[in-house]
Amino acid sequence: MTRLLHLNAFLMNTGHHEASWRLPESDPYAHVDLAHYVRLARTAERGTFDSLFLADGPQLWSNLAQRPAGALEPLTLLTALATATEHIGLIATASTSYNSPYNLARRFASLDIVSGGRAGWNIVTTAGAEAARNFGLDAEPAHAERYARAAEFLDVAFKLWDSWEDDAVVADKAAGVWGDDGKIHPPRHRGAYFSVAGALNVPRSPQGYPLLVQAGSSDDGKAFAARYAEAVFTAQQTLAGAQDFYADLKSRTAAAGRNPEHVKVLPGIVPVLGSTEAEARAAEQVLEDHIVHTHGVDRLENLLRLAPGTLELDAPLPGDLPPESAIEGAKSRYTLVVELARSERLTVRQLIARLGGGRGHLTVAGTPEQIADRIETWFTQGAADGFNIMPPVLPSGLEAFVEHVVPILRARGLLRTAYGPERTLRERYGLPRPANQYLTPAFA
Amino acid sequence: MTRLLHLNAFLMNTGHHEASWRLPESDPYAHVDLAHYVRLARTAERGTFDSLFLADGPQLWSNLAQRPAGALEPLTLLTALATATEHIGLIATASTSYNSPYNLARRFASLDIVSGGRAGWNIVTTAGAEAARNFGLDAEPAHAERYARAAEFLDVAFKLWDSWEDDAVVADKAAGVWGDDGKIHPPRHRGAYFSVAGALNVPRSPQGYPLLVQAGSSDDGKAFAARYAEAVFTAQQTLAGAQDFYADLKSRTAAAGRNPEHVKVLPGIVPVLGSTEAEARAAEQVLEDHIVHTHGVDRLENLLRLAPGTLELDAPLPGDLPPESAIEGAKSRYTLVVELARSERLTVRQLIARLGGGRGHLTVAGTPEQIADRIETWFTQGAADGFNIMPPVLPSGLEAFVEHVVPILRARGLLRTAYGPERTLRERYGLPRPANQYLTPAFA
Repeated sequence: MTRLLHLNAFLMNTGHHEASWRLPESDPYAHVDLAHYVRLARTAERGTFDSLFLADGPQLWSNLAQRPAGALEPLTLLTALATATEHIGLIATASTSYNSPYNLARRFASLDIVSGGRAGWNIVTTAGAEAARNFGLDAEPAHAERYARAAEFLDVAFKLWDSWEDDAVVADKAAGVWGDDGKIHPPRHRGAYFSVAGALNVPRSPQGYPLLVQAGSSDDGKAFAARYAEAVFTAQQTLAGAQDFYADLKSRTAAAGRNPEHVKVLPGIVPVLGSTEAEARAAEQVLEDHIVHTHGVDRLENLLRLAPGTLELDAPLPGDLPPESAIEGAKSRYTLVVELARSERLTVRQLIARLGGGRGHLTVAGTPEQIADRIETWFTQGAADGFNIMPPVLPSGLEAFVEHVVPILRARGLLRTAYGPERTLRERYGLPRPANQYLTPAFA
Repeated sequence: MTRLLHLNAFLMNTGHHEASWRLPESDPYAHVDLAHYVRLARTAERGTFDSLFLADGPQLWSNLAQRPAGALEPLTLLTALATATEHIGLIATASTSYNSPYNLARRFASLDIVSGGRAGWNIVTTAGAEAARNFGLDAEPAHAERYARAAEFLDVAFKLWDSWEDDAVVADKAAGVWGDDGKIHPPRHRGAYFSVAGALNVPRSPQGYPLLVQAGSSDDGKAFAARYAEAVFTAQQTLAGAQDFYADLKSRTAAAGRNPEHVKVLPGIVPVLGSTEAEARAAEQVLEDHIVHTHGVDRLENLLRLAPGTLELDAPLPGDLPPESAIEGAKSRYTLVVELARSERLTVRQLIARLGGGRGHLTVAGTPEQIADRIETWFTQGAADGFNIMPPVLPSGLEAFVEHVVPILRARGLLRTAYGPERTLRERYGLPRPANQYLTPAFA
């Protein structure tokens, strides 16, 4: 079978560029406008994308002056989008630190049923004290502890998703027997973080489990991905860096006893399109001109754990930043930003411009052919199984990608021209439906 | 303004009669069929109902042999139904004992935004050890403690829903200022059950708060309803009993300093329709003939906290049952069942038949006129502000009600003939949009 690109549309109010909301075309109320998201979802489906994706965290990010903040809860929004689309996968971010396995497993199973097998879960452990303080904690749990809890959370979720055998409903009207209680398997789980006794109150869903997605690139994050993830979102700036990440993750996955083809690596890409390269650069410059630099300094100081007022706009980063091991929050994002600034000798102002477009993800400004070339290169040179498409401005950036880049990728045989007969997101990823753990020989 | 009936459609897979799934017409897989629920929702909207309602509990109820078990998570299902309907309210049951205020407040705000102001929350404290054991507890929390937690949960939810002023987004593109941080009010809540520091990550929704619904009829339940509820579902068997409940709840609401018109009392009614009374009785008999009595005995023993094998099918209930005060679970349901059995001198077999149709709610078998008469009597005689319609068989029972009873209620001027200009569920209930607590004089 020909290897095809997996494309995911990373949706975010007016777009991934921090200044996108200021453009005349942008609706500053898009963050709560279902019609805006329906339009995006249908556009992605026209482009035969595999999936839509919503990032999330259970706290109000940044401050309101800077850019659109607050968002519809992802599973809610994706449920609404499920009814407006037919084929596309629906990947919601949800935290293992600030949810109960019983409730969250049920919500994903419900979305999977309602969407006919299109649910995906971007598993996050949620960095930051702000989130912790919304859930009864005074400080953020340590990085390693968050990952230990995440692993147990997954273990419980698997038990819950398997707690109904697929044929538990017998529906024998004549005998008055609706279901077979012998095909229900209560988890009876007692662990370090969770105790969950009973079976889930929703049947096993079309996919069995939602597609499992992960985006942490720290060492803990990669170990977790190797064990569980079926798709990985990652921020990579260079082909070589992306190749290293790709090879590392595939080999970790094999070492964890899994088929490395069962984890798809999707770097983020911010395509800034123009009909000529000059036009694309001009569009990029317009966005850059709308950046409010004081906001960028605030955010950078926050990310780097520096006191307010530390950074100077036209100087480089300070030389005495702490190592990644000292960071309990978003470790890999920290390192990516510091390395980007140092390797390209950027001033704070230049770094803000680089980050403003896609928060550390690869930005490519160019013609449709140039963007297709970059995608093809990474895809064929062992750096990517597909891409997380992060348009700088929405909806126009996604529409431009689907109208101008998608036909080129199709002409090159890299992307499907129509959805195939596969019905579920897992099938589209070439993944098997997970076997029920209670039906494996160890339990028989 | 003419007083009009508030009608709510209580949706439940194949219907409220426990044997409904065994009828030839019933789909035993309806519990996971979105199309089934879309059909019900649209039928209720044709009948100009105020709202749809889904009961729920975070555990797998009963055992599978007896009847359909498991259900789509209510907020997920109602979100999908929001996109399939235009006017009707969407009331989801969710537990204050087994959710975090931050997550749940956000989910209701998100449903309210996605539906254009149609969300309602049936607030439950969730009885039973089964649920507790799915959330890390060994036993069910005491009844009074569940209600204390519920009150604090509401307090936090109100703070979160008010944490954005309605005009917090200023969207000043020229100045590069998206929102006004002075209009964000972090709750900074520290209480006995919850600590929640930060503002919600979704703006204030069209209704401000979802419509608040309550269904507990214990003393704690009624005190809670008087303080918070805007609609109350209740199980009442007789006009006199319903009048007492109605008068008591209205006077408690006034005593709590609220306008008693701002709480609507909706008894449950199970309409068994026939074109003649004999036909209705025959339909009722068909359902009764499909009851599996051993199942009914199991459930009754469970409700009454009796050891298996205690009850005899053709004998009355034992005389030495404990008083309601000794019950930590569903107190008012316990008392209703015991009183029903004693006042009507029912055998266990007869009691099972009475409960099988609607779990203690009023069942009326008759012609459309007879059912309309009963509704009108209760509505005009101080027993109800409307009804929670619980068809014994779905979808046919709801379709029959809309086709045959609704026109009579409309002809009598008791029910709207079309939806009016109101846009939100609160407006349809004649309720004001809640003021933001941070804008009241005490905070100014």
